[in-house]
Amino acid sequence: MSDTEIFEIFRALSTATITTVLLKKGLRNVWMRGPQPLQAVDQRYVGKAFTLRFVPAREDLATPASWASPLSTRAAIEDMPVGAIAVVDAMGVRDAGIFGDILCARMVKRGVAALITDGVMRDVAGVLGTGLPVFASGVAAPPSVAGLTFVGWQEPISCGGVAIFPSDLIVADRDGAVVVPKDLVAEIAREAPDQEALEAWIMDEVHSGAPLPGLYPPNAENKARFEMSRAQRRRSH
Amino acid sequence: MSDTEIFEIFRALSTATITTVLLKKGLRNVWMRGPQPLQAVDQRYVGKAFTLRFVPAREDLATPASWASPLSTRAAIEDMPVGAIAVVDAMGVRDAGIFGDILCARMVKRGVAALITDGVMRDVAGVLGTGLPVFASGVAAPPSVAGLTFVGWQEPISCGGVAIFPSDLIVADRDGAVVVPKDLVAEIAREAPDQEALEAWIMDEVHSGAPLPGLYPPNAENKARFEMSRAQRRRSH
Amino acid sequence: MSDTEIFEIFRALSTATITTVLLKKGLRNVWMRGPQPLQAVDQRYVGKAFTLRFVPAREDLATPASWASPLSTRAAIEDMPVGAIAVVDAMGVRDAGIFGDILCARMVKRGVAALITDGVMRDVAGVLGTGLPVFASGVAAPPSVAGLTFVGWQEPISCGGVAIFPSDLIVADRDGAVVVPKDLVAEIAREAPDQEALEAWIMDEVHSGAPLPGLYPPNAENKARFEMSRAQRRRSH
Amino acid sequence: MSDTEIFEIFRALSTATITTVLLKKGLRNVWMRGPQPLQAVDQRYVGKAFTLRFVPAREDLATPASWASPLSTRAAIEDMPVGAIAVVDAMGVRDAGIFGDILCARMVKRGVAALITDGVMRDVAGVLGTGLPVFASGVAAPPSVAGLTFVGWQEPISCGGVAIFPSDLIVADRDGAVVVPKDLVAEIAREAPDQEALEAWIMDEVHSGAPLPGLYPPNAENKARFEMSRAQRRRSH
Amino acid sequence: MSDTEIFEIFRALSTATITTVLLKKGLRNVWMRGPQPLQAVDQRYVGKAFTLRFVPAREDLATPASWASPLSTRAAIEDMPVGAIAVVDAMGVRDAGIFGDILCARMVKRGVAALITDGVMRDVAGVLGTGLPVFASGVAAPPSVAGLTFVGWQEPISCGGVAIFPSDLIVADRDGAVVVPKDLVAEIAREAPDQEALEAWIMDEVHSGAPLPGLYPPNAENKARFEMSRAQRRRSH
Amino acid sequence: MSDTEIFEIFRALSTATITTVLLKKGLRNVWMRGPQPLQAVDQRYVGKAFTLRFVPAREDLATPASWASPLSTRAAIEDMPVGAIAVVDAMGVRDAGIFGDILCARMVKRGVAALITDGVMRDVAGVLGTGLPVFASGVAAPPSVAGLTFVGWQEPISCGGVAIFPSDLIVADRDGAVVVPKDLVAEIAREAPDQEALEAWIMDEVHSGAPLPGLYPPNAENKARFEMSRAQRRRSH
Repeated sequence: MSDTEIFEIFRALSTATITTVLLKKGLRNVWMRGPQPLQAVDQRYVGKAFTLRFVPAREDLATPASWASPLSTRAAIEDMPVGAIAVVDAMGVRDAGIFGDILCARMVKRGVAALITDGVMRDVAGVLGTGLPVFASGVAAPPSVAGLTFVGWQEPISCGGVAIFPSDLIVADRDGAVVVPKDLVAEIAREAPDQEALEAWIMDEVHSGAPLPGLYPPNAENKARFEMSRAQRRRSH
Repeated sequence: MSDTEIFEIFRALSTATITTVLLKKGLRNVWMRGPQPLQAVDQRYVGKAFTLRFVPAREDLATPASWASPLSTRAAIEDMPVGAIAVVDAMGVRDAGIFGDILCARMVKRGVAALITDGVMRDVAGVLGTGLPVFASGVAAPPSVAGLTFVGWQEPISCGGVAIFPSDLIVADRDGAVVVPKDLVAEIAREAPDQEALEAWIMDEVHSGAPLPGLYPPNAENKARFEMSRAQRRRSH
Repeated sequence: MSDTEIFEIFRALSTATITTVLLKKGLRNVWMRGPQPLQAVDQRYVGKAFTLRFVPAREDLATPASWASPLSTRAAIEDMPVGAIAVVDAMGVRDAGIFGDILCARMVKRGVAALITDGVMRDVAGVLGTGLPVFASGVAAPPSVAGLTFVGWQEPISCGGVAIFPSDLIVADRDGAVVVPKDLVAEIAREAPDQEALEAWIMDEVHSGAPLPGLYPPNAENKARFEMSRAQRRRSH
Repeated sequence: MSDTEIFEIFRALSTATITTVLLKKGLRNVWMRGPQPLQAVDQRYVGKAFTLRFVPAREDLATPASWASPLSTRAAIEDMPVGAIAVVDAMGVRDAGIFGDILCARMVKRGVAALITDGVMRDVAGVLGTGLPVFASGVAAPPSVAGLTFVGWQEPISCGGVAIFPSDLIVADRDGAVVVPKDLVAEIAREAPDQEALEAWIMDEVHSGAPLPGLYPPNAENKARFEMSRAQRRRSH
Repeated sequence: MSDTEIFEIFRALSTATITTVLLKKGLRNVWMRGPQPLQAVDQRYVGKAFTLRFVPAREDLATPASWASPLSTRAAIEDMPVGAIAVVDAMGVRDAGIFGDILCARMVKRGVAALITDGVMRDVAGVLGTGLPVFASGVAAPPSVAGLTFVGWQEPISCGGVAIFPSDLIVADRDGAVVVPKDLVAEIAREAPDQEALEAWIMDEVHSGAPLPGLYPPNAENKARFEMSRAQRRRSH
Repeated sequence: MSDTEIFEIFRALSTATITTVLLKKGLRNVWMRGPQPLQAVDQRYVGKAFTLRFVPAREDLATPASWASPLSTRAAIEDMPVGAIAVVDAMGVRDAGIFGDILCARMVKRGVAALITDGVMRDVAGVLGTGLPVFASGVAAPPSVAGLTFVGWQEPISCGGVAIFPSDLIVADRDGAVVVPKDLVAEIAREAPDQEALEAWIMDEVHSGAPLPGLYPPNAENKARFEMSRAQRRRSH
């Protein structure tokens, strides 16, 4: 499958369904604690992780002057490819905003798909004005250097208690953001749509008044009924 | 008083007033920390507590297979009476959703009045679509078994740092959810409307420009004025 | 500068810009953790801090009877001058509401500009109904005495991990609330508008497609271009 | 009773017993969270509270220069009477030590009985060398001004989530530190020794093999046996 | 294997080794957060879990009078079999001691092997005097009813974020306490001694100066050397 | 100055004094939150930081098999130079031990001076047996892979909320561990001994009964007295 096809499939999969399928493969820790949408969200964002990493502020390092350094958030942004999802390890720090309106506006210009962080944003009115989809732990006025020192990009990071490696797949919707490890992307793309279809059929049954035991998860009889309904639906297309 | 009459009275009492009256009887710990409405709330929900209890996930127990067990959340839901308020002890765990759209849809079918938890919901878009009033600590994509093992229902539980027993009265509004211990329900139903009326009268006085000292709480003179105004209002009906 | 002039200048400065300018002077800890607007905010609130202080509840002190004491929140409110911003140290306690609708209504009557607290409000529907701008850490039903004992006003306090002294300047907007120490107010009023103008010019450049390095912060060339553009704008007025 | 007599009585009462007796009078929140003995403790410390209060550090205020101000911890220490127990509100801050060896040595010189804080100490080796009994939340190297601004003494404070007023009685032992509100001191001094004697008698019964139900708390029969044993003991003296 | 044989095996296995072997079977969450030995520990405690459960205090329930109820901690203790390890779910509450000297003394009389809790103990001097091995989260003076309501025993519980069921095996040493689910006990008893022996052999190699890569975990060559050394040791016995 | 001379100087400087001197240069955030000595400490450890970095566990990465990877803690240890202080970023995770006895024994063999981490150790009895000086946040039985994925060494890290870069100087004593940024080492080595000498002189004055105001910090008169006493002491050598 091409990246485009894969992204298409994941845009139809809720993060809830993705976590269910990953759990069945033994992965329980894939949902990032903290990042919540700052704007109303009625779609799903899918892209490859472009990682950024902060360590705590140290007054000799975390200064406005550091913003001009070649090793700065500015340089990292200029390195982001079109369609990337920026994932920022701010160690959950909630009293210094990692980015404001200017950096977000530049990310939009570069075609970045979304920004995910366990930290917070500053100048939230300006940030929302840029149209960049942002999933963060909240809002704070102070600049990043009040609490954070930027140290690099495209390294393995922690975001919200989850390990993220560059090029892992990120999916974000109203339930927040999850990682699909890059080696599992194709497998999940094949299997998860079945789970999504099953749950949709179960929801229909519940609306028809069916009780839960034997239905969710389905016993043999209900599995058969689901498969039949699915076959019929396919035939009718 | 019948349950219907009691519920009617409590629907007119804010959770703020209920906590004031309970505090005067020595109960300070009746408001659950965590549960906040996930949807816009412009009414009050009243019902008897139907409790559910989780312990932490253990990988040998908390599996998708466990959902088919007779001791499952599914069985608990099928046991909920019409008008109940489900109160779920998730130990404040915020990285695994206790229920998603399917379980909530079934609760609506069974006539459950509301769901209260110190945990979080998953598939929040789907959950809101069912119309079930939900008071929770937030949202997370992963399924319950990623962090929780279900162990039973209609037992004493902790919810948000408050002890809840089956059949205690639960009242929830924009300020969150409070418990009225079942042995105190009749007493509060008799006394709290007076507090509510007094505070409404004080609010009118404030709007007329009265200063607070002597008014809130009222001194003897203001108490007398309140009683007179109340008597006049009754006469005029 | 008169207070009125100073307030006017600060109403045009975002809290994000103010924290940047204060950081350049060595002040990193000026943004209060916790206070977030309870209502939609599309303006900025500026005023002098009027402080209130709570300590934890002790059952012999924190009683409804204490509300009638001369050392009560009621007396403190009657002492608030027009235009003040009340800043309340509730030690970050989130399970007892410091004020409800009646006290907020009285503050509106007295011309208080806004209320900031690291604690929470009760009867949020009623509070919002009064129109008082409130920045708080959330909402809880129980009265203050369930968790707090009021001990005084116009003392130095902690609010959200920040030291606030009476008459410090407070500015609050969608990013929350910051303090400008009273001895630094005039200096910030002189310098911050430059920072605001520079950032607006940089935002225009980003919209025109300029990359970040050399722009933000500006190198010598871009600084010169900004100064020129500013001079032109002034001439054209 | 004189202070000396009262102190004598409390030195024979464990903090566990004191909290039991206070709870029976409706006071549940009297034990300070955080303060633990830094040194081996095999006695009990009793004295009147002398309070000190910090707010968070602000870089314009919390400087080494501030240590020379008349409103400094140094001045507060010079104001402490012999036998006082210093109780320091550090808001639970654990990354800046409130005092080191020099201030503790001076407190010993002034006859201070003990130091209690919800903050931490610095230079712990030096502090222990002074012999001052210290109950604190731990140890940190940085000076107070790295995280704290001192604002005054002999005010009402919070220490470890408990309200402390100047001249309240403080008792500290291996279980930590509790407050006895000054208006309750005489009452507790009269009643608590009975509780202590009863528990000692129950402990003897347990050592003799008695089961707990009916013994702890004692039923009527065991209460009678305890009273008899007590009367015998008194007679035999 | 008899219980006695199994207990014998586990007394020779460190909790560190047990968690390694359980992790290889997919169980990552078996070590209880909080319980640490209150006394010096130079042996290992092994026994079957006897569970107790608390919910938060509610002033109408959590009273000294409740201690006389048939549903009390006293009754639970009288139900504990010889050799049991009491595991107490106190929801991590650290400001009310679950048990003091009297209850611990009775547990010793009944032959209880150890007490594990995510809560804290009171009257620590008295508790240590009873000789009961205790693993707890610390010490607090107030009685359990200041923060907790006891609700039952021999139910599934949470202790330190781990699910514990009655009759699971508990092992505790200086690293704290772990659970071995009862269905896995025999399997771990068979497999873990190999892991322990391997690690002892590796430690010898390290003492002889061997570098870590290829040694820990062992490559094929080192595995063979370990097996040979083990065979020799067996022959020589 | 040579490294040996610098190390010698720092071994005579308490971490308390170092933080005071760094604060006077504007650095407030240099003491690591969490690391405390696991063994009795009566000396000071000084060395250059050798950093290691973990991110959270992900079940596809954090496996016992990963311990054989070239990018493992084992390889990192083999890269540590004699005299280094290993500083390990475990993100403050307290339920998985970063190292046990085997890795610590190997570090001793390689001449590592000490180990500092904001995480915890496992098999604490074994670790203490190796004699490696360890400063950690506590103890837990589970292996690192139960909660952590190792990702690299000699990178900038966070440890206990402090930024640490490879080759920064680390000093650890009973108050915990501090960083001296490498560019400031020489400056601190020159200036801090004066602070240490001044504080020793002040301590003597306190022992002689001098009050604190004017002494600590010293006014002009006391500064002169200190300088004189210092000059005399030098002459007498």
